Amino acid sequence: MSDSRPIGIFDSGVGGLTVVDKIEKLLPHEDIIYFGDTARVPYGTKSKETVTKFSVENVEFLMAHDVKLVIVACNTASSLSLDFLRRCFKVPVIGVIAPGAAGAVNSTRNNRIGVIGTSATISSGAYEKAIRKISRKVKIFTQSCPLFVPLVEEGWTGGEIARKVSGIYLNGFKVNRIDTLILGCTHYPMLKDVIKKAVGPDVLLIDSAAEVAKEARDLLDASGLLNNSRRKGGQKFFVSDEPGRFIKTGGRFLRRRISCVKRIT
Amino acid sequence: MSDSRPIGIFDSGVGGLTVVDKIEKLLPHEDIIYFGDTARVPYGTKSKETVTKFSVENVEFLMAHDVKLVIVACNTASSLSLDFLRRCFKVPVIGVIAPGAAGAVNSTRNNRIGVIGTSATISSGAYEKAIRKISRKVKIFTQSCPLFVPLVEEGWTGGEIARKVSGIYLNGFKVNRIDTLILGCTHYPMLKDVIKKAVGPDVLLIDSAAEVAKEARDLLDASGLLNNSRRKGGQKFFVSDEPGRFIKTGGRFLRRRISCVKRIT
Repeated sequence: MSDSRPIGIFDSGVGGLTVVDKIEKLLPHEDIIYFGDTARVPYGTKSKETVTKFSVENVEFLMAHDVKLVIVACNTASSLSLDFLRRCFKVPVIGVIAPGAAGAVNSTRNNRIGVIGTSATISSGAYEKAIRKISRKVKIFTQSCPLFVPLVEEGWTGGEIARKVSGIYLNGFKVNRIDTLILGCTHYPMLKDVIKKAVGPDVLLIDSAAEVAKEARDLLDASGLLNNSRRKGGQKFFVSDEPGRFIKTGGRFLRRRISCVKRIT
Repeated sequence: MSDSRPIGIFDSGVGGLTVVDKIEKLLPHEDIIYFGDTARVPYGTKSKETVTKFSVENVEFLMAHDVKLVIVACNTASSLSLDFLRRCFKVPVIGVIAPGAAGAVNSTRNNRIGVIGTSATISSGAYEKAIRKISRKVKIFTQSCPLFVPLVEEGWTGGEIARKVSGIYLNGFKVNRIDTLILGCTHYPMLKDVIKKAVGPDVLLIDSAAEVAKEARDLLDASGLLNNSRRKGGQKFFVSDEPGRFIKTGGRFLRRRISCVKRIT
């Protein structure tokens, strides 16, 4: 069996391109439809109701492209809206939370896991719930890091400011002696080096983007939905604000030039 | 003559409450309808077309409350959309740019003015155009400060991080020998102390919120639209996301507790 329909991925903006990057590597023959809600970004400071309303609209847009799977690449939308999306739509919908939580539980040796994310993701408690479903032994420590996304968008991912901000947010994790830290926001892998310095070299960083790509592969494989063609998959990018900024910032997330970005209204 | 209709004020979020604060002081008998577009905040990183679309919707909402004057309290929306709003609506519409520019030109002694704001405000060139309309002698130096709004929203308005970030953005103004600096974003007055330290004690800071309040008074007075009643004016606050965060952050901007905030869809 082979299913040539594309995979749909949405995020509040550019961050979800880290998921596209991982999917391209793991599933090179799949077509991808990506939607970045750049007119309404960020989601991380907004309420469950608002984020869910936006998410439903985003999935409706992807569904119009006949996608076979929806990946909610945004941690905030995954935290607040995944259950609702699954009830609303017939297509399988996966988010970044459960795969990230599973990756962390598999990796921890001392059962002490840290989670960082936006205010909305952290206060939703979504990662705690997802970890609890797998293991009741793990101790979980959380911290929201609202300045990390603006730092990444400004391009200040190294240097003194990034180090100091990381220190303020992350120093507590040393006291908590975590050995695994979930980067619960698609922007955070861009700050990997300073985060690593703040928490210490022995703490393993879990990037949800890599974990959700594996889950997507397993799910498509198990359901007979993989695209078995041998040609390289294509990508189409859509945004809700004008594409210029998305193309510029997005290039850093995808680690290649993005072309062919369409604005929708 | 007396006109008891309210003044309508909108902003992308909480920042415009600094304008409400100044209006309450200068025009204590006026009723105010405030709309903060908290579901779609921030505007400062978005395109002219998107910000204008949002602004038109915001004014339509205020018009439904029969306002006699619209104040665009958001620097970004004033920069990108004021001309369009004036063509669309019959009610007088004023923004924060022209009053801020006039305040700066009146204050400078050496004719060297600095302007700081969001990326969208600065790249629009709106302050330069407004200053040029008044004086061709002035030299203008501009700098966008994308991290200032997140710093204020995080509450990190003093301390080392705010000082370092201010230093990076503002050190150039010393070389340019400005004597007046326009705070071209309603969030920036919250960072007054660190900004003052970065540019030096002799540089005068112009707060657009204070300037637009004077312009509103003059316009209402000249058009016979002032409310001459002796009772204290009332305020109604509306937001597009859930009110909790607005109430919490907004209290710092308005310097008093906000109550009675309604969410609209």
